[in-house]
Amino acid sequence: MTTTLLDVARLNAAYAAAIDNDRLEDWPGFFVEECLYKITSADNHKQGLAAGIIYADSRAMLTDRITALRTANIYERQRYRHIVGLPVLGDAEEAGTTAETPFVVVRTMRSGQMDLFAAGIYLDRIRSADGTLLFEQRIVVCDSGSFDTLLAIPL
Amino acid sequence: MTTTLLDVARLNAAYAAAIDNDRLEDWPGFFVEECLYKITSADNHKQGLAAGIIYADSRAMLTDRITALRTANIYERQRYRHIVGLPVLGDAEEAGTTAETPFVVVRTMRSGQMDLFAAGIYLDRIRSADGTLLFEQRIVVCDSGSFDTLLAIPL
Amino acid sequence: MTTTLLDVARLNAAYAAAIDNDRLEDWPGFFVEECLYKITSADNHKQGLAAGIIYADSRAMLTDRITALRTANIYERQRYRHIVGLPVLGDAEEAGTTAETPFVVVRTMRSGQMDLFAAGIYLDRIRSADGTLLFEQRIVVCDSGSFDTLLAIPL
Repeated sequence: MTTTLLDVARLNAAYAAAIDNDRLEDWPGFFVEECLYKITSADNHKQGLAAGIIYADSRAMLTDRITALRTANIYERQRYRHIVGLPVLGDAEEAGTTAETPFVVVRTMRSGQMDLFAAGIYLDRIRSADGTLLFEQRIVVCDSGSFDTLLAIPL
Repeated sequence: MTTTLLDVARLNAAYAAAIDNDRLEDWPGFFVEECLYKITSADNHKQGLAAGIIYADSRAMLTDRITALRTANIYERQRYRHIVGLPVLGDAEEAGTTAETPFVVVRTMRSGQMDLFAAGIYLDRIRSADGTLLFEQRIVVCDSGSFDTLLAIPL
Repeated sequence: MTTTLLDVARLNAAYAAAIDNDRLEDWPGFFVEECLYKITSADNHKQGLAAGIIYADSRAMLTDRITALRTANIYERQRYRHIVGLPVLGDAEEAGTTAETPFVVVRTMRSGQMDLFAAGIYLDRIRSADGTLLFEQRIVVCDSGSFDTLLAIPL
């Protein structure tokens, strides 16, 4: 069955809702077990640098990250709101569907102050497993190269 | 007939366009007569506080609000632009469809200055009446708890 | 064949991706040859002023603009990210489909600083040519009337 634009958009909406509604424990479940999740900057990505600000190549590493976040308890101090655009799908390949999707994240501090926290694009490879779409790869390419030290949260 | 993701997305787009294009008089028409419309903050919502910054439990109250806005003439001083994400639909129930949808509102002042006016999530219950979708409930949960005094405009 | 909401949303996503991913040379290809592309402000548009900050009435003029941008080399200094909402479609007419679509553009400077660059609405007339959707008209109505001098980039 073909993965459609709407399927991917629905996946993105559920992904963002899990993060923004503080259901972080659900986040690793959006990935296959042997996944690649990376946050990098547009400049580094353009230069082909493999290293990212955040790098995980298994779902277990994603789970570890959430555990660390909860222990450090830094996540609660502010709220995030992802606004995700519609994806541009690549050619359907046997390996899965590729998609590029723009996003912006607005952060609201406890004081009520809002700012633009991140903007960029998701570079995804998505696999359908029993009708459920999962990320094999989600590379988060941020337009900005200067990251807030609190960028421990998933994007 | 099932209410689909696209149906709800179309409703949200029309709703935002009415507000942003200054067709405020159309706004109450997006609700059923015995509706619940509320603007609250994430903190208050989490604590289960019923009161909102704005609270209306009938379409007539929404119409009154628009009349007040027009009389006070404060709406014209700036422009608003809603960017609404895709909804996450809940299970279909007999009572209607539930949906959670993220949004961000950008405000542009007469001077040309733009800022983030609001970010948050819509918690909706939607009913289909003769093929037209209407809000039975729209709870606007804002990430920020500090509201601009001009927050008389619909979100 | 009817042009649907999803068709237009897909077109908008591809259009934004071309600009934000620095494939500016692809941009004129989204328009028919005898097109109207204009960037104006909400105030000027409301007053019916024909002139825009940017005005082009052929695809060739759009191509010229990109050539100028590349020569001036000012585009590379910052990054742009369009977040485009869902369109509200007008009645289907023989002349094509009309659509109104809200957008916000976030700009990221080389320093990493992000700001709201533009917010507004696209007023489009879209024609289907051999299954490909093209803009006959795209009027970009910006909420702000004060434009950055660098607003040479396509919106």
